[in-house]
Amino acid sequence: MEINPTFYHRLLARPTVIITTRFRNNKTNAAPFSFITPISFKPPYIGFACDPRHDTWRNINYNKEWVINIVSEKIFDKLKFLAKKYSYGVSELEQAGLEESESKVVKVNRIKQAIGYIECQLNRFFNIGDHIFVVGKVVCCDINKIYWDKENKAIDVKKAKPFFHVSNEIFAYRAKPIRVELKVEEEKKSEPEGESK
Amino acid sequence: MEINPTFYHRLLARPTVIITTRFRNNKTNAAPFSFITPISFKPPYIGFACDPRHDTWRNINYNKEWVINIVSEKIFDKLKFLAKKYSYGVSELEQAGLEESESKVVKVNRIKQAIGYIECQLNRFFNIGDHIFVVGKVVCCDINKIYWDKENKAIDVKKAKPFFHVSNEIFAYRAKPIRVELKVEEEKKSEPEGESK
Repeated sequence: MEINPTFYHRLLARPTVIITTRFRNNKTNAAPFSFITPISFKPPYIGFACDPRHDTWRNINYNKEWVINIVSEKIFDKLKFLAKKYSYGVSELEQAGLEESESKVVKVNRIKQAIGYIECQLNRFFNIGDHIFVVGKVVCCDINKIYWDKENKAIDVKKAKPFFHVSNEIFAYRAKPIRVELKVEEEKKSEPEGESK
Repeated sequence: MEINPTFYHRLLARPTVIITTRFRNNKTNAAPFSFITPISFKPPYIGFACDPRHDTWRNINYNKEWVINIVSEKIFDKLKFLAKKYSYGVSELEQAGLEESESKVVKVNRIKQAIGYIECQLNRFFNIGDHIFVVGKVVCCDINKIYWDKENKAIDVKKAKPFFHVSNEIFAYRAKPIRVELKVEEEKKSEPEGESK
């Protein structure tokens, strides 16, 4: 069944993060994003697509820094406040009753209730269609150790309970971890093609 | 707990797709990717990060087309064949015992067992760190109607059973759909900030 290409993004359940940026009045802006992807390992670059009219882009364009806050389903009841567009300079975090704390490298604050943080500095950006694709260099990566799977050196999905955006108010959650054999015969590859080095 | 910034991508469970491209010998190459994100609605653009040494990029650089195959957990036992690097010109699909069928707009074949397809033509690409970020225009979007949630105009996560890559052989799967209220008081927003139009 062919669907309007404008809806192509609804074929993917996309990881949802909260990006914090800093207003000129030094308050913290926070907004949910799911158009986000890792790009490079060395140097570590991560990109996301942003509506150029939104405060997130205005702030990044001004002071070149942001934090990708990794959040769990515990934040569901706060999401409506983070998704709402308040006047410029109004902190969504205050509206949502979330707390902020200082980041380790960047001047933008992080969300205290998040479980992990990817601190970014602007590397470059591109106007692509109706969005700006913003590429950041990862300058600090931090996770609450409770949610870190030491054996696999990765987020512990079972404990972290990440969620995914599908469309409008539909999300996906409670994904379970599973080990999938990627070894063929004698050969062992460490990562699927797209991410192997 | 600070972790090496090179591992930042392991803080995200990322949607896993199989990208098909066409070799010069007209055989079909297939490889799993999870560094992928929607970028723009109008025009519809989607991007993914590709290792420049891989056949996927060689093929796209040559004939400018690819298909993003949306797959379910049913493909788990095939993944090791798709992730393996065979010699140039060898079809991973044949190795995996998967079938291919003609696409609707592009000349690259799609995977018959996939549940949805995003057909792309090269729009532009960027060298970013150790990857190439490839941006495609969506020229056709297709889904098996069994997996389409008509009410919400989106993939039916419960039926489609998408999966997510975390690190090495660790994936996440069986995410459940949930409706999250995004309305604050009187105001109703249709999409979180990052994707609103």
